[in-house]
Order: sequence, then C-alpha cells, then structure tokens
Amino acid sequence: MKHLFFLCSVLFIISCNTSSTNEMQAGQTATSQNIDMLSAWADTPKAAIEDWVKDVTDSSSKNFIPVKDRITVFDNDGTLWPEQPIPTQAIFAVDNLKALAATHPEFLKDPVLKGVINGDMGPLKKAGMAGLMKLIYASHGNQTEEQFNSSVREWIDTAKDKKFGKLYKDIVYLPMVQLLKYLRSNQFKTFIVSGGGADFMRVWAEEVYGIPPYQVIGSYGDLSFDTTGGKAVIMKTTGDIFVDDKGGKPEAIHRFIGQIPVFCGGNSDGDQAMMEYTSSSKYKTMCVLLHHTDSTREYKYDLHTISGRLQTALEEAKQKGWLVVDMQKDFKKIFSFE
Amino acid sequence: MKHLFFLCSVLFIISCNTSSTNEMQAGQTATSQNIDMLSAWADTPKAAIEDWVKDVTDSSSKNFIPVKDRITVFDNDGTLWPEQPIPTQAIFAVDNLKALAATHPEFLKDPVLKGVINGDMGPLKKAGMAGLMKLIYASHGNQTEEQFNSSVREWIDTAKDKKFGKLYKDIVYLPMVQLLKYLRSNQFKTFIVSGGGADFMRVWAEEVYGIPPYQVIGSYGDLSFDTTGGKAVIMKTTGDIFVDDKGGKPEAIHRFIGQIPVFCGGNSDGDQAMMEYTSSSKYKTMCVLLHHTDSTREYKYDLHTISGRLQTALEEAKQKGWLVVDMQKDFKKIFSFE
Repeated sequence: MKHLFFLCSVLFIISCNTSSTNEMQAGQTATSQNIDMLSAWADTPKAAIEDWVKDVTDSSSKNFIPVKDRITVFDNDGTLWPEQPIPTQAIFAVDNLKALAATHPEFLKDPVLKGVINGDMGPLKKAGMAGLMKLIYASHGNQTEEQFNSSVREWIDTAKDKKFGKLYKDIVYLPMVQLLKYLRSNQFKTFIVSGGGADFMRVWAEEVYGIPPYQVIGSYGDLSFDTTGGKAVIMKTTGDIFVDDKGGKPEAIHRFIGQIPVFCGGNSDGDQAMMEYTSSSKYKTMCVLLHHTDSTREYKYDLHTISGRLQTALEEAKQKGWLVVDMQKDFKKIFSFE
Repeated sequence: MKHLFFLCSVLFIISCNTSSTNEMQAGQTATSQNIDMLSAWADTPKAAIEDWVKDVTDSSSKNFIPVKDRITVFDNDGTLWPEQPIPTQAIFAVDNLKALAATHPEFLKDPVLKGVINGDMGPLKKAGMAGLMKLIYASHGNQTEEQFNSSVREWIDTAKDKKFGKLYKDIVYLPMVQLLKYLRSNQFKTFIVSGGGADFMRVWAEEVYGIPPYQVIGSYGDLSFDTTGGKAVIMKTTGDIFVDDKGGKPEAIHRFIGQIPVFCGGNSDGDQAMMEYTSSSKYKTMCVLLHHTDSTREYKYDLHTISGRLQTALEEAKQKGWLVVDMQKDFKKIFSFE
C-alpha cells in the first residue's frame, strides 16, 4: 500500500456530501470540428504548444523526435476533467455501493457501509483508513471484471454533476480534449496517467478522450484469475492497491509504457514527479501545468485544497520553464457547453 | 512473489552451460516482403487463420469484431523465438553479470555470483531460489532504467546462439512474425504477454517484431523514482517480482490492456490460462498453440521439459478447438535464414 496520504485525502473529501443525480438521458460529448485545432486556447499558450510541436516534428530540426518516441502523458482529475468539490470516482463509489446494496444485504450489517448507504458519512470519517478501504472494496472489489465494467458503463451514461447539470462524461475540458487530438494528429501517442482507478477510466476514456483502454494507466488493485465457475474470469479482489500518484506516476510510466515521455500535462503536486521524469528525457520536452483560477466557469483552488493541491509543482514550473496555464485567462472556453 | 515454480525452472535450466558468443556483427532481421503474407505456413493452418480473420473482419458477418476490440496476445519464449536449451534471457543474465563484474568487485565476494562469473554453476544450483534471486538482482537490479536498457541493447546487437551461429534477435520464427504482420494489416493490435522480463524485451521488440514497448507485457520487478542525484531517474530495485506466467498472464492482460483478447498465440502450459481467458470473450476467438516437433530445424520437446512444458494445454486444445501447430509439418520455414 503506497501513498497512504493520497487515500487519506480521498477519505477526507468523500466525507462531504456525495449524492449525485442519475438520469437516463444522453449527453453531448465534447468534440471540436474546428480547423483551428486549439481554438479554445488563448493565443499565448496556444503559440507555445504549437511552436513546440512544430519544432519536434520537423525532421530538419535538431529537436526532431522520431514518431516511436512521441509519448505523451496526461493526468485525468483536474487536468482533463474536474476534481472538485470531490473526485468523480468517489461519487461513483458511493453510488455503486448503493446500487450493489440491493443484492448485498451484508453491507447493512457494517456501520460504515450502512452509514454511506443512508447518507451518513460520520461512521466512515470516524473509521479512518479502515473505513475508506471498506468503501473501496465493497464498491470496487469482490466482483468480476465484467460486472464492474457494466456498473461503470451504466453510471457514466447516466450520472450528472450538480453544479453543471450535465453528465460527468460531458464535463471535460475542451482545450485539453483539443490538445489530445492535436497531438495525435501529429503522431504522438496519448496516455492517461492518473491517480484514479484504471478500471474505472478505461470504460469511457475512448469515447470521451479518444484514448483506448491499454493507454489508460491508473491506480489498480489485486486480481485473481478464476475458472471455478466453469468460465475463465478476472476477479477484482481486496488486496493491495497501487496508488498511481506522486512518485508512483513515473514508476507506472516505466512499468506500463517503458519509455520516458516527451510531453506531460498535469495540474497538481501529484503530477510533479512525472513532470520531472518527462523533463529528464534526452529530447526537448514540454510540460503543461493547469492552474485552476476560474471560480465562475469551474473552480478556483491550489494551495489549501486536499485533492489537487498545487504548490511545489508551481514553484518548480518557474524554474524549469513548464507552461503554467491560468485557466481563467488561457482557456477561451473551458467546457464545450458554455 | 508469485509462481515460484517458474523461477525454480529457470534456476534448473540456467544451471546448464550458459556461455554465448558475442560478436560485433550486424545480423539479418526476419522480415517477409511476399505478397502471400503467411507464405511460411503450410496450407491447412494458414487456411484456418485466414478463414478466422476474414470472418471476424467482415462487417457483414455475425462474427464481426469492431477494430477497437481486435486485441491479440502472444507469448514470446517458444512462441516467437526459441526457449531451448535455456531461455535466452537467462543467457543475458549471465553475460550481463560478467559484464557488470568489472565495475562491481563485490560480486566476487559472493560464492554464487563468483561461481557464475567463473563458469561454475555449482554454487548457484546449491543455493536454490536464494541463489537465483542473487543472479537476477545482480544482473537486472540496482541500476537505472537507462543503464539496463543500454546493456540489453549492446547484448542483443552482438550476442549469438551456438546452435544457429546467428544473433539471437535474428532467430525468430518466420511464420509467427508473418502472422503478427498479417494481423496488424487487418487492424488487430499485437501484444506480447511473456514470462520473460518486460524491460528486457522492450529494448528490441519493436525492431524484431514491430511491437512498441507499451504493447510488451512481461514479468517485472520493483522500481523506485529517484531524484537524489539531481536528475529524475527510475531505479530497478531488488524487491518483489511479478512473474507473468500461468494465471499471472490473464491478470497482466487485465492490468495492462484492460480488454479480453480475441486471439492468443502460445506454446506451453504456461499459456493455457490466457488461452482460456481469450476463449471467454464474447466474440469468436482463435487460439494457436505451437507444438515443438522439429529436432532438426529447431528443438523437439513437450512433456518432459521444464521450460516450455506442454501437456495440459495440449489436452484442452483438443476440447476447445484451439489450433495446434505441429512445427515440423505446419511451418514450411521456421527461420528466415534456413
């Protein structure tokens, strides 16, 4: 179990009110058909990104990067979609626990789970890490790959955020979706490297970001291969969890990708290590650090938040020349539905 | 530490003579420019493969598989290149230990490592698992990603096999390389899922098989992200090892790919679980099991070997309709240099 602080943070923020609105209503997926592929970006950051891409994809440039090495990595929560007031997957965990409770009467025998099911987060908060693990295991573990994927699919197709009144899968940062497409159109491979659960993101990342499951890296739990029921299945079990945050991100990049990225997008101190790792490449690299500065169109936070805290990465950005994106002024549009 | 039996097997076989010939001489990489993409296959297995591909890529077929789900997985040792008389990576481990010994005088203070360096495998064999781990850690651990990759690169470009007198990277099964290309030309993604080390294979898999590092899955050890030297690096450390064999293969497929494959190539009981997992797909699947039957052109083995043992998978192949490839009669050519 690595990075307990990260899980503690999740515990803290999940202790807030977490109910969401589920409605069977299709939403609009954020896409852009503009010829200007980065139309939602303000001129200055757009020029910086375009200049870098033009330089490293020009075969006559001394900074040319061969196609096989055009590896780019992006955090998800706070970088591709919002993470306030609490991370979206925490809302799924609570909603899925409630959905599973119908066939799991034993949940009600546990004070923590019973509390969450009934909307009382007190016992969860009081139980600390042990309580959080109960919630994670009950909502994410002890089920087959297929069962879990179906639950996520149904949830992501229906669950809506309160502030925006939209499906979560439609509340994604338009400039970042444009950036993913722009990089892919220049033969970069785009990977997600997120503290969120890989299994959770893989269900919808292709539809929402155009990123296939095998290019989605995230936190993950133990598994077991099981043929006892007559069919070969992968069971999500309740053992250790690898938390893909902070130093775990470059570790996961090595384990899953096996190459040092040349571009990294992130938004918090949790992404700092993978930016440092990206910056260690032999190639000319680019790191983009989102600063959440827009309380009207999205959320404003940095220093004092628990999820998405941004302090040391901002300081290092100045030293290393990473592009800091002030979302209020650098994103002409944040969401496609604005 | 999973699947200790697998590591014990490696210990047993590494106890044989493991010296190899390193020569600074470029070799010919196995490629095929023929219009018949499966020209090295005999007619019957070729027809079976082509029939399946035509069926599942025909959008009017009831067995059509959308491009996004065309995931194929291949074992490496014994499936894409030989694994006899001992797995190639074991030879690398010994050669790399010797190469590192020049800058690691402490190796000679250890009886096991000293024995291996001097060509005496007795102490290694006597030390059992602890001895094997010493060899693995000394040759593969305690070094940066960059150092290890450079060592593998130099070795794979120069090390030759005794029986064939060729570079190891050129001793690959021509029909299987053709099959990889044929599948990719039909918009399948090709992944390696091997008991061999991911870090070892990723250095050369793109050159040899056309498979990029992030589609190479294998056994892997612990890592640490380290910035103490002023540069961000990944250190290969000496902790637990995930052994990607038997039930570990479907687990790794879930963890790294996140989708159930529709095609699987293997050659031993170690690949049986991933064939069962592939067969559990909702789509019409194909599994191809190589049977090493040619003692003249390659090696003949199955029941009584330790590395590449083939018994229960062969029995299940008959029940499940997996395609068993008799390498002597079904491969018109085994190697491009024949």
